[in-house]
Amino acid sequence: MKAEIIAVGTELLMGQIVNTNAQFIAQQLNELGISHYVQTVIGDNPERLISVTKQAEKRSDIIIYSGGIGPTRDDLTKETLADYLQVPLVLDEKGLQKIKTAFKNRVMVDSNKKMALYFKDGKIFPNDVGQALGSAITKQNKTYIVLPGPPHELQTMFKHYVKPLMINHSFTNKQIVSTYLQFFGIGELLLADKLDDLIKNQTNPTIATYASHYVVTVRLTASGDSKDSCEAIIENMVGKIKARVGDYLFAQGEGLTPAYVLKDYLMESKQTIGFAESLTGGLASEELVQVPEASTVFEGSLVTYSKNAKAQLLEIDPQILAEVGMVSVTCAQLMAERVREKLQTDIAISFTGVAGPDSLEGYEPGTVFVGYAYKDKPTEVIKYQINGNRETVRHRIVYTAFLKIIL
Amino acid sequence: MKAEIIAVGTELLMGQIVNTNAQFIAQQLNELGISHYVQTVIGDNPERLISVTKQAEKRSDIIIYSGGIGPTRDDLTKETLADYLQVPLVLDEKGLQKIKTAFKNRVMVDSNKKMALYFKDGKIFPNDVGQALGSAITKQNKTYIVLPGPPHELQTMFKHYVKPLMINHSFTNKQIVSTYLQFFGIGELLLADKLDDLIKNQTNPTIATYASHYVVTVRLTASGDSKDSCEAIIENMVGKIKARVGDYLFAQGEGLTPAYVLKDYLMESKQTIGFAESLTGGLASEELVQVPEASTVFEGSLVTYSKNAKAQLLEIDPQILAEVGMVSVTCAQLMAERVREKLQTDIAISFTGVAGPDSLEGYEPGTVFVGYAYKDKPTEVIKYQINGNRETVRHRIVYTAFLKIIL
Repeated sequence: MKAEIIAVGTELLMGQIVNTNAQFIAQQLNELGISHYVQTVIGDNPERLISVTKQAEKRSDIIIYSGGIGPTRDDLTKETLADYLQVPLVLDEKGLQKIKTAFKNRVMVDSNKKMALYFKDGKIFPNDVGQALGSAITKQNKTYIVLPGPPHELQTMFKHYVKPLMINHSFTNKQIVSTYLQFFGIGELLLADKLDDLIKNQTNPTIATYASHYVVTVRLTASGDSKDSCEAIIENMVGKIKARVGDYLFAQGEGLTPAYVLKDYLMESKQTIGFAESLTGGLASEELVQVPEASTVFEGSLVTYSKNAKAQLLEIDPQILAEVGMVSVTCAQLMAERVREKLQTDIAISFTGVAGPDSLEGYEPGTVFVGYAYKDKPTEVIKYQINGNRETVRHRIVYTAFLKIIL
Repeated sequence: MKAEIIAVGTELLMGQIVNTNAQFIAQQLNELGISHYVQTVIGDNPERLISVTKQAEKRSDIIIYSGGIGPTRDDLTKETLADYLQVPLVLDEKGLQKIKTAFKNRVMVDSNKKMALYFKDGKIFPNDVGQALGSAITKQNKTYIVLPGPPHELQTMFKHYVKPLMINHSFTNKQIVSTYLQFFGIGELLLADKLDDLIKNQTNPTIATYASHYVVTVRLTASGDSKDSCEAIIENMVGKIKARVGDYLFAQGEGLTPAYVLKDYLMESKQTIGFAESLTGGLASEELVQVPEASTVFEGSLVTYSKNAKAQLLEIDPQILAEVGMVSVTCAQLMAERVREKLQTDIAISFTGVAGPDSLEGYEPGTVFVGYAYKDKPTEVIKYQINGNRETVRHRIVYTAFLKIIL
């Protein structure tokens, strides 16, 4: 079973947007164990759409189109394919009703109706977050699946309607289970190197690594006859991976970041936290606040970027600051303790150091002192040396400190 | 002159990475006025590379490849093309020397040498940020350009070596000038609608709109015989656009955000700033700190996420908070004034309101009170109603407040 992706949209050819739809569909096909060798991007042009469709038919059983099913006159994917395949398009009454409701306070022009079209005798994919319906038709053993261009609509439609069809409906009849291992403190290349033989010999489960936002993720996908057999296969591989790089593993689950894990830990242990931020400049707070329910554990922070702010907001004696410097054990300790006292939190973390690109107080970029003040035990200060540019140093030290609390 | 892009890499087909190279090259081709109708992605597979190359030759004059020129045995783009085009590959001595230097403390295996290969009698593109050389060869009026896969290497090589060749070397001999207009507070669709006739009738300058990170950008690209004539064309179009949507224009220049503009304004007017952040949770500070030289204008912030933090850090009487609520004119005013007094800044901005998804103190999500406290004039408080989800509300209100200071 081979599939390929044709993304339709002049804005992709202009470089105005990046083709995240292809990446999303590719990940999904990979998880489903459906082979996938070619992706194509073309503009809103019927002739070219037919030309690349003919090439795709020679290579693949399933052709997935994204884009070109909106209301404008440029949107011609369904019409072009219907014409080429000689399959009529029909209006879905439910879809049409939904469009009419959406337009009840606005003028609805006729071209809006075409978003409710689908291939006669084919599948209808409802659009839960928009108006344009998806549709699929099988002809001469080739399946043509048409999906909307906006990534949010495409992803929702794929997950709710296309994927179940792919799992249950002739494409593949296996059970599939995935898990995600989240690593911090190890680069993707080094991690892949340590798992080299496992990755090279992968069959079941498949193993994919990817890095995003300073975290490296390993995705394991097992297929089998039952959920239990898949889970056993995954558990076995997780064990092997942990034995090699378990020191860097901080969570198991899709999309988990150090901030999510910190929030869960604090919520479960009924603890609250606050920060005193110098070089991180609000980043630790911002990372934690992005997590739903952060307000149950996060009290607040002092962002003391300047020396004056450290003196004023943290009430640190300017003379001490002048003597020991802002990049120092003492400064980190006082910052963490002062903010904890002010907020009466269970834990407070302070960040002071050199984000770069320039050195500060004789320290190289990447030198950071982090203070950990606790309600019921003595304050710790740890000096870290972080590699990377300004942006990287600031993110890495925040994640490092979050995970230090948990692990 | 038509060009197309073939991205080579199994990691693209697996959905592990998104094809940002295609977007980057598409933007560049668009700026250069080179037509571009098709993009393809394939895995590391020689047969498929030749097959899609043959299809591309039928459509295009220039074929640009990204990826598959590294040191591993999967990297076969140069070898496959050399074989197909019957052009020998030769070792570039300078490139080889660079690889040897990079490996002076490590074991260099023979396969590393192949990164210094180029097409005999073709162009060599040095890699300023990596080792694998790019190369180009013209045969039977078709030009084949091979570039590295890592986006940083590809972009640097393209800008330094490929683009000048495209500008000066037969592809196009026109002068090209671009400018970027940055808009906030208007959606991309509405903006495009207001410029509809200008966009539809575009010839010179070309007009492209794109949205990223809550800002909408209009890029104008003029081509002509001289820089002056290009600039005159652009100035004329900027005037037309300003007449229609000038109210939303906040900056002219590539990559400018409201935070950049705020920092420049404060630096020029020799003013300092601080924040008191409730619903924004450190975001205002973090946005400003990302701007180089932010330390010259930014003192610090109080992130008072909880009611307790507002009482403790800002020393706001808990009874007042209980009476007027945290989402109130009074709370915003006190927050801004207290943080300004503590930090002795020229300006302080406070943010308190409802990010969502739930209502708070009877206010709908998106209701935000922003306080603006000044050294030498009375405090202002403005109530805003922002549309969007939690993430959007928090970003939009920060940008709104930054631009209120400037405009």
